[in-house]
Amino acid sequence: MVKFSSINYTLGGYLIFYSCCFLPPLGIALAHQEWRQGVVFATIFASTLLVGLLCWGFGYSRREQFHISKKEGLLIVSLIWILSGILGAIPFYFCKAFPSFISSLFESISGFTTTGSSILTNIEALPKSILFWRSFTHWLGGLGVVVLFLAILPYLGVEGRILFRSEVPGPEADVLKPKVQETALALLKIYLAFTLLETLLLLLCGMNLFDALCHTFGTLATGGFSTKNSSIAHYNSVAVEIVIIVFMILAGANFSLYYHFLYKEKNIFLKDSEFKTYILILLLFTTLITLNLTLSYHPNLWRNLRHAAFQVVSIQTTTGYGTADFAQWPPFSKIALLLLMFIGGCAGSTGGGIKVVRWMIVFKIIYHQIEKTFRPHAVRPICINQKGVSEKILEAVMGLFCLWLLIFALSSLLLSALGVDILTATSATAATLNNIGPGLGQVGPTLNFSTIPELGKLWLSLCMLLGRLEIFTLIILFHPAYWKQ
Amino acid sequence: MVKFSSINYTLGGYLIFYSCCFLPPLGIALAHQEWRQGVVFATIFASTLLVGLLCWGFGYSRREQFHISKKEGLLIVSLIWILSGILGAIPFYFCKAFPSFISSLFESISGFTTTGSSILTNIEALPKSILFWRSFTHWLGGLGVVVLFLAILPYLGVEGRILFRSEVPGPEADVLKPKVQETALALLKIYLAFTLLETLLLLLCGMNLFDALCHTFGTLATGGFSTKNSSIAHYNSVAVEIVIIVFMILAGANFSLYYHFLYKEKNIFLKDSEFKTYILILLLFTTLITLNLTLSYHPNLWRNLRHAAFQVVSIQTTTGYGTADFAQWPPFSKIALLLLMFIGGCAGSTGGGIKVVRWMIVFKIIYHQIEKTFRPHAVRPICINQKGVSEKILEAVMGLFCLWLLIFALSSLLLSALGVDILTATSATAATLNNIGPGLGQVGPTLNFSTIPELGKLWLSLCMLLGRLEIFTLIILFHPAYWKQ
Repeated sequence: MVKFSSINYTLGGYLIFYSCCFLPPLGIALAHQEWRQGVVFATIFASTLLVGLLCWGFGYSRREQFHISKKEGLLIVSLIWILSGILGAIPFYFCKAFPSFISSLFESISGFTTTGSSILTNIEALPKSILFWRSFTHWLGGLGVVVLFLAILPYLGVEGRILFRSEVPGPEADVLKPKVQETALALLKIYLAFTLLETLLLLLCGMNLFDALCHTFGTLATGGFSTKNSSIAHYNSVAVEIVIIVFMILAGANFSLYYHFLYKEKNIFLKDSEFKTYILILLLFTTLITLNLTLSYHPNLWRNLRHAAFQVVSIQTTTGYGTADFAQWPPFSKIALLLLMFIGGCAGSTGGGIKVVRWMIVFKIIYHQIEKTFRPHAVRPICINQKGVSEKILEAVMGLFCLWLLIFALSSLLLSALGVDILTATSATAATLNNIGPGLGQVGPTLNFSTIPELGKLWLSLCMLLGRLEIFTLIILFHPAYWKQ
Repeated sequence: MVKFSSINYTLGGYLIFYSCCFLPPLGIALAHQEWRQGVVFATIFASTLLVGLLCWGFGYSRREQFHISKKEGLLIVSLIWILSGILGAIPFYFCKAFPSFISSLFESISGFTTTGSSILTNIEALPKSILFWRSFTHWLGGLGVVVLFLAILPYLGVEGRILFRSEVPGPEADVLKPKVQETALALLKIYLAFTLLETLLLLLCGMNLFDALCHTFGTLATGGFSTKNSSIAHYNSVAVEIVIIVFMILAGANFSLYYHFLYKEKNIFLKDSEFKTYILILLLFTTLITLNLTLSYHPNLWRNLRHAAFQVVSIQTTTGYGTADFAQWPPFSKIALLLLMFIGGCAGSTGGGIKVVRWMIVFKIIYHQIEKTFRPHAVRPICINQKGVSEKILEAVMGLFCLWLLIFALSSLLLSALGVDILTATSATAATLNNIGPGLGQVGPTLNFSTIPELGKLWLSLCMLLGRLEIFTLIILFHPAYWKQ
């Protein structure tokens, strides 16, 4: 049985923390004299705090009996993301720029899952406090996912843990840090340091503080919400693009590498095979797309390289910022970007997608299967970073890989049943399931998700959550046996 | 080391058999006074026979030393398909309807792999003997693949065997027939009986003997080459459509079931879970597409049901015959058909695609993985037909499933690099890799593959071979270790 009392207590604690997240946008609303938004943020802050205190206080006296097992832990994780999405949608709903609560919910979940898909047609018309909240949901979601996958899930013993360098099983399994709180704190520090650094660099590039902060939130969370209608293309600045490219790459890498770099090995980036593969894929696709653009789209090589590099990094890290309308690019570049969407960032990053290390494992399994066809007895273990990967993990990776593609297919089918055309249905699913942002067709980089029917928006919100929580964490809640004794 | 002398001997034997396959079209050419074609068929017959006799005779004296291991067996299988395709292309090349040898090769490989993708714009203008040869390659390919997967590969111990009802490992593993020749003979009889029966029924429906034979060849092999420009739509006859639907369904089922039905269990069709799932999928998709068509395409329910049933059966069995231009259908129906392409027929059928039983295994693995997330110790074996499937087979199935989708993605990318648009690139790959025939976009049901660049045609020919031989059988030849000691 799922123990609801323990869940109540933990969620209470989370709501207290979450209520405080409404304070920064409240401050911005007051500073910009956006009274309507101020009232909304203040009301949500107060009511969330109150409910949180009630839940928490109710359970505090009985906290000794509480115990969070794997089952409750997974439920809490899913509930936190869903609750954050729903409560975060309220400020959007009351700012009147969104046609319905479902649209607000879509935008909010897109924020917290660091997807960056938007239904807005005119972003710049929004009040400052709403713009800030939009980007801030990214930052919170990005921090949340790093802490979730590197501190909480490993603690709960979920398959996620085995994918990170430090947790590859072997004779000397050096876990990142033994306790959840310590690990979370270390990650928070790294995340804050990156935030500070990128904001400073963007200020140096000539951005104002507000834009610099919002774009930093979007970069580090590999989110993609911008404060400008034309995204990063608005600035038309090579310096801004380079800063954002670098930080997108950093955000798409495994955050435990930074911890290792700081406290243990200085050459960790040269040794980690996932990181090397990640960089290699970025370079390969940038080259291929630059060539394709130069041969069949635009003669200027430098301009093509600049756009290709930004777009490849933006899509593979699943950020979704744009400097060019890749919907106009030749078919090869578009299919290449669609493929990149499914590759995604590294495990333990803020990026979405299937993740580089899983693709590496799938490729190795396939290679082994080919070999086994004619050498059935030549069984060698599959290794990542010179350490054998257990049978259990191999199965989990293959299962996730297939499930990911199945959900992609079924979701495309479902969207098309709502009357959406093929390219839009498939790319909208790819863009949300992999937490990218823009797709192709009706949801291309210069367009938005406002034309998707309401039911489709709800479904795509679910896809964003599924992708963000790597499917299994969320989908078990739909398994009947989960709710049984 | 691969023993080339044994391969030589076996291929010699095959060429002698293959040369005889040119005799029926030679007869037709002579009967229709198509002298040019007559000369071509006679020349190929004679030269193939000669080369075959030489190879075979050369090895005959040393046949005692010969031994065909798994390695040589797999190479021979691949070589037979490739050789058949190349030699089969010669009559096409000399009939002048094909712009290049690559186009002829594409058509020939499309025939032998029972794909049915064509580059012809005006089929009815072809000489009768060429039309016959085109359909006859299907029939040969269909017979070949049934014999290969039910008699030869099981004998060589390749993973294929474990997927058939009779070979699911268990306490009483009742193999179809212990020896290759016996099994092959039993399958040939069943195949011949079906051929006779369908031809008779089509004659009864008013088709002439030539068309009835050619369409029977295309149906039983789940090929799809027609003798008419508008395929089965040409006849506009419900009776013809019903006969073809029934035989497409029969051809898409596991041929070992018929053997079991005849000699062992009369209720095998009710007991076999793959067959039941196969029928269920056909019914489900027919219903869904009929509904979709009625709601958003055409008000006539009966007409929609007729077209949907034919098209669903044609696509899922990977035949590719057409009675309607599904490229005009709403997006849902198109995506549903694309999905069906990847499901394909049953294992041990003449159909292509990933095969129903593999999808069943993948779904079961995923379900188990979901369960394992919250119940890590509840490990139950995965069963098909109440028998446990071994770990080795599960790995092989997952490997093939992922590899299939990867090849689909890479092939789409490659075609788009040649300038083909996204829908055409993806659906042309899906249509050839799964041995269907028509795709969407520029290769839609009323169009053909003539607009694909030459390199693309070559690549798609490889895709047809990969799909037909279920990838692993062919791809190992590209593995360096295969050629080493």
